[in-house]
Amino acid sequence: MTTGPLALICGAGSLPAQVADATRARGRAVFLFPLRGFADPALVDRYPHRWTRVGEFSRVMAEAKAQGCAEIVMIGSLVRPKISDLSFDAGSLRLLPKLIRAWRGGDDRLLSALGREIEASGLILRAAHEVVPEILVGPGPVGALDPTPDDRADIARAAAMLAALGPFDVGQAAVIAAGRVVAVEAAEGTDAMLARVADMRANGRLKLSGRAGVLVKIAKPGQDRRFDLPAIGPRSVEGAVRANLRGIAVEAGSSVIADPQAVAEAADAAGLFVAGVAGPGVSP
Amino acid sequence: MTTGPLALICGAGSLPAQVADATRARGRAVFLFPLRGFADPALVDRYPHRWTRVGEFSRVMAEAKAQGCAEIVMIGSLVRPKISDLSFDAGSLRLLPKLIRAWRGGDDRLLSALGREIEASGLILRAAHEVVPEILVGPGPVGALDPTPDDRADIARAAAMLAALGPFDVGQAAVIAAGRVVAVEAAEGTDAMLARVADMRANGRLKLSGRAGVLVKIAKPGQDRRFDLPAIGPRSVEGAVRANLRGIAVEAGSSVIADPQAVAEAADAAGLFVAGVAGPGVSP
Repeated sequence: MTTGPLALICGAGSLPAQVADATRARGRAVFLFPLRGFADPALVDRYPHRWTRVGEFSRVMAEAKAQGCAEIVMIGSLVRPKISDLSFDAGSLRLLPKLIRAWRGGDDRLLSALGREIEASGLILRAAHEVVPEILVGPGPVGALDPTPDDRADIARAAAMLAALGPFDVGQAAVIAAGRVVAVEAAEGTDAMLARVADMRANGRLKLSGRAGVLVKIAKPGQDRRFDLPAIGPRSVEGAVRANLRGIAVEAGSSVIADPQAVAEAADAAGLFVAGVAGPGVSP
Repeated sequence: MTTGPLALICGAGSLPAQVADATRARGRAVFLFPLRGFADPALVDRYPHRWTRVGEFSRVMAEAKAQGCAEIVMIGSLVRPKISDLSFDAGSLRLLPKLIRAWRGGDDRLLSALGREIEASGLILRAAHEVVPEILVGPGPVGALDPTPDDRADIARAAAMLAALGPFDVGQAAVIAAGRVVAVEAAEGTDAMLARVADMRANGRLKLSGRAGVLVKIAKPGQDRRFDLPAIGPRSVEGAVRANLRGIAVEAGSSVIADPQAVAEAADAAGLFVAGVAGPGVSP
């Protein structure tokens, strides 16, 4: 089943290193394709790799096959690039009209089109957690603290709202406080949404006393997890602390934590809970 | 039917003046209850009035009845105050536990509780547009420009998304560009959401070329229009210009425009459309 090394297209953050390490710990080799401008060079040096640019699909596919890889995983964050910033190789140019059409339809359709192209080239595109399921958040607390029943009621309400947003390919995260959704994430990303909540509390727009509110992060119902697992990391905890939240809830079984040890320590130090919770009935 | 003067509780902005003027133009007297810290003192001097504070429900009800009013309208914006900032008169104090419970449940439930209390006091609470329907935006362009078919497809998608959010009492507005919802309004308000879109375009988080995107504002499906009509005004146009949007769409028949003449002129000067559009099947 595990035929040859795992090809790993690496975006930003520490998750690519976690997936590479976990894969190697399972006795399987990896070959990295770090994306220039996104991936962390310090990670790359520890593994065989070839730097690449967003848009060089054909080159990556050819090199992965030359390295004996049959399976490929994409991991790490990628702020959606501007078409004119991409570098398209000859083989990718023929995909351009298809990708531009998909682009206009939102992330999901773009990525689905990309996934079909990868598979058409003969490689099997896997979700990171299919290869190394140990990276997924399980149910229950990540640090020492647990959400209270009131927190759980808030979390359930925010998760239901995010599920209702799913068909519109908007976002995966929200902040809810005392039953009221106070922020919904769209293109700005989770860190910017948390900063907004901190701002609204500071400027009096949002009147909450003391620790209040939960960051809730859930996979979109139709989300293709081969591209985009909901993720939190130490920066999410920092943002939640600045927004004076009570904690962070991520969907168990379909979310990942970048640097879970650091997340647990930072959450415990700040008195926040970080917990895996059941999602609103998403398929596995 | 129009028994006595109309009592008007006035929040911020120019809408209270529009409603007072339109009511007087219909030959009906008004008596204003401008809210201290919110209402514009310049407006107040033109009409019989009594300054009041948020929380002084009983006093307002008694005074309105003393002035011969049978109907009351609340109009203008009110950033949700902190409970401890309110001044409760003796008659309102007994409502406090009820209001605090409603408060925790979000705007809609708070306002419904307030509406029930007003009606229990013997006054009839009306939506502004029941008294002066001419303040509502009609279908079609407000200025000189019209949305294109692509704009209309974007507007329909955002309106459907906002309708899906309705049960969660989150927001009434979103920004959509080329089929993708890039911002959803929650507690931050429309102006802050537009500023965020401008920031995302400036810092490269959002890659859009030239004029792109539409601000879409729709009544929440269960919204009680006696309290909260979706509203835009000159500041919305300024925000849309800074975010380099193509235009603004508001729900025809259930939205109001503060200072429509200024909105039309500013939109025309900037080359933006402002249009009333059909909502996602909301009840009248």
